[in-house]
Formats: sequence, C-alpha cells, structure tokens
Amino acid sequence: MIAFTMEKLTYICSISHLTGMGSEKISMIVFSGTDDRLIPVGVITQAAAALGYEVNIFITGWALTKVLRKPAQPVWPKEFEQMVPALQQGMARIKAPSWVEMVKQGKELGKVKVYACSMMAEAMGLKREDFDPSIIDDVVGVTTFLEMAKGGQVLFI
Amino acid sequence: MIAFTMEKLTYICSISHLTGMGSEKISMIVFSGTDDRLIPVGVITQAAAALGYEVNIFITGWALTKVLRKPAQPVWPKEFEQMVPALQQGMARIKAPSWVEMVKQGKELGKVKVYACSMMAEAMGLKREDFDPSIIDDVVGVTTFLEMAKGGQVLFI
Amino acid sequence: MIAFTMEKLTYICSISHLTGMGSEKISMIVFSGTDDRLIPVGVITQAAAALGYEVNIFITGWALTKVLRKPAQPVWPKEFEQMVPALQQGMARIKAPSWVEMVKQGKELGKVKVYACSMMAEAMGLKREDFDPSIIDDVVGVTTFLEMAKGGQVLFI
Repeated sequence: MIAFTMEKLTYICSISHLTGMGSEKISMIVFSGTDDRLIPVGVITQAAAALGYEVNIFITGWALTKVLRKPAQPVWPKEFEQMVPALQQGMARIKAPSWVEMVKQGKELGKVKVYACSMMAEAMGLKREDFDPSIIDDVVGVTTFLEMAKGGQVLFI
Repeated sequence: MIAFTMEKLTYICSISHLTGMGSEKISMIVFSGTDDRLIPVGVITQAAAALGYEVNIFITGWALTKVLRKPAQPVWPKEFEQMVPALQQGMARIKAPSWVEMVKQGKELGKVKVYACSMMAEAMGLKREDFDPSIIDDVVGVTTFLEMAKGGQVLFI
Repeated sequence: MIAFTMEKLTYICSISHLTGMGSEKISMIVFSGTDDRLIPVGVITQAAAALGYEVNIFITGWALTKVLRKPAQPVWPKEFEQMVPALQQGMARIKAPSWVEMVKQGKELGKVKVYACSMMAEAMGLKREDFDPSIIDDVVGVTTFLEMAKGGQVLFI
C-alpha cells in the first residue's frame, strides 16, 4: 500500500493520460491528388516528426497515383492554375524540398510510417509492387489504419 | 478513506481518461459534394462502426445535395474526370457498395448517426422533409454537433 | 501525505485529463482558397468560441490570399459554379455574416486566434504587413502551430 502526495497523484494521472491518449500522435488520411495539397502533408510530417510525434499517413483515392514507382504527372486545382507558376518559383526560392523529400526526412528524424489503402489500390488495379518502396511502408486496410490512429489527431487531406 | 496500490491508481486514471476522452469516437464534417470524397465517408463509417466506435456524421455545404430524397446527379472533380470511368469499373469489380449503402451497413453494425446542418439547409432552401430519412437521422446546428463530437477525432471532408 | 476518497481521486484524474488533453480545443489548418470552404471556418469558429473552446486557426496555401489587406477576388469550385448564386442569395436571406465577420465575432466571444503560415507566406512573397491585422494575430511556423493544437481536435480544411 502506498500513500501519495498531491503532486505524485497528478503526475501519475498525467502519465496514464499521455500513455492512453497520445496527444503526440498525428495521422493523415490523404485522399486529394492535386499537388498543392501534398505540400502540407510533407510540411506537417516533417514538423511533427521533429517534435517527436508518431506520424501515420494513409494514402488513398487519387493520392495513390502520387506514390507509384512511375509517378503521375502533376495535377493542380483548376481554380488556382494561374497562380501555380508563382507558387512553384516561390517554393524553389525558399529551397523547400518536395513533399516526398519532406516525408523521407521525417522518416529519418522520427516515427513516420506511410501506408497505401488496400481497398482503393485494388479498385484502381494497383499492386504492392507498383508503389514506390522508398515512400510506402505497407499496404493496409482502413480498419488497421484506424487502430493505429486511435487516440491521436487525424487530418483528412 | 481508501488507500490505493499503484496498479489501482493507474486503472482509475485510465478509466476516467477513457470516459472523458473517448478515443473510440470519430466524427466527420462532410462539406464536399463531389462523389469521390463520399467514398471514404462510407468506408470510414463502416470500418469505425465495426470497431465499435461511435460515429457522428454532419452533412453540410454541397454534400447536402447528396442526401436528398431526390438525389443530385453525380459530380466528379474536374481534375480527375478522365480517371472516373476506370475508378467506377474498379469499384464495381471489387463489389464495393455505394457510400450510402456503407453508411447504412454502419448503422446496422453499430452507433452511427447522420445529421444535416440546419444553417446550410436553411440557406439552400431545404426542409426536413426533403432529406432521405433512411440516411439523415436529424437536422441539427453546428453547436449541437460540436458537443456530440467532443472528445473524439474529427475529420473535415 | 494525503489519503483520498474515491470521489476525490476521480476528480483529480479528470482535472489532470482535461488540462492535459483539452477536449475543449479545436484547431483548423485552412489550406483551401475557395470561398465556399471558408463558410464552415467561420461557422465552426463562432460556435466553438461560444461553447468556450480555445480555437486556433492556421491559414496556409491558397487561403492566405483571403486574409490580405487587399483581399483577392472570390473563387468558387468549378464543379458547383452554377449553384453559387442560389447559395449566396440563401446566405443573404438568412442574414449569415461573412466568414471573416464570424471569425471576428468569435474573437469577441472567446479564445480565438488566427495565424498565417510563415513558410507559405514566404513562398508566396507575402510579408507580415500584407495581412489584414483585424484577422491575422501573428505569422508563425507549423511547429508552433502543432504545439498550440496539441491535445485538441484538428481539422484540415
């Protein structure tokens, strides 16, 4: 039997809380296939990995075409097409790496995993060997992903 | 007065934590009205319901046109229009149900509720009786939805 | 040394939990630059502020063009262009304020802060003085934002 001071109790509760909940986990479901929305995927991954977060990325929908050995042509949103050259020049000027390079840097820095959605891969006729193994760690179902994302923040991009 | 062992304390804290936080609740704010982005709404709902999650879906914006008794024509993103026939054939080949069927299966499996946004419904001139009652459980405001989503994961789709 | 009753312990744990985890915090990463998707930013901000939530908004990508002293022209999604006049008339009929007015009302009501993304601002050649100071509270990096968003819900819009 142990008797606790107030300080100890608060500490124990916060530990149990952190373990159970993991405010230090961020997961992303990446559905969009336009190249602009992949930039924040890279930036958030790199920043979260540097902060020590666990990062789980689930690539699905049109975004699957962006993680193939034979990458798809860039696609930009119709509404902002005229602003794309300026954005690209700006990204080059500040020497921002591509989203894929940022994700790879995140993998080197910390706990980053990237998964391809098995259901959408099957619907799109994509096999495990079609995916770039330097980006995709595994092909999994959404149930597996939800279990991994449990207790953390989740973004739908 | 009670004295606790270390194990008991950790247990109490984790119970209080789970009750308060509910890592097993996922909510979705569905704003997009293109049919591609409704697929993950169905898939996530079905998977989360099967895992025992509470699932709250808040339909707003353009997505309201997709839950009417008189459903709107399919709308696909301009950027990927040429890939749509292949996607649809793939979804048929793997016998994937429509997003609405997946949501309905989720309702049968577990705790799934679908709400229409009262403010956007009013702005779009839609009345309660315009919504398909086999999908929409109630018409509520965003404040009510935020209260329901409290403590869980939230996706904006 | 203190001995606790069961009730007190549960209370302490829930306090530590609320402090650490903050189910009453909602953060938004706003990347989209089409005016339709800014409506929910305003509505959610206002509702969450009224509920006493801490609200952190991180403006990045195309959305940066919407928070300048010299605001950009409205941009609507190509797929729903024909429905925009009806939506705008509906919003006027229900006397809905603009998204910016709703964010400002949220700031008056509660704990709402709006940040511009330093990296994307730099890439787009935008300086601190280009942003409307009645909307933007500060220009920060994504790491700072992730720290602020820690333990709460996060939406990617």
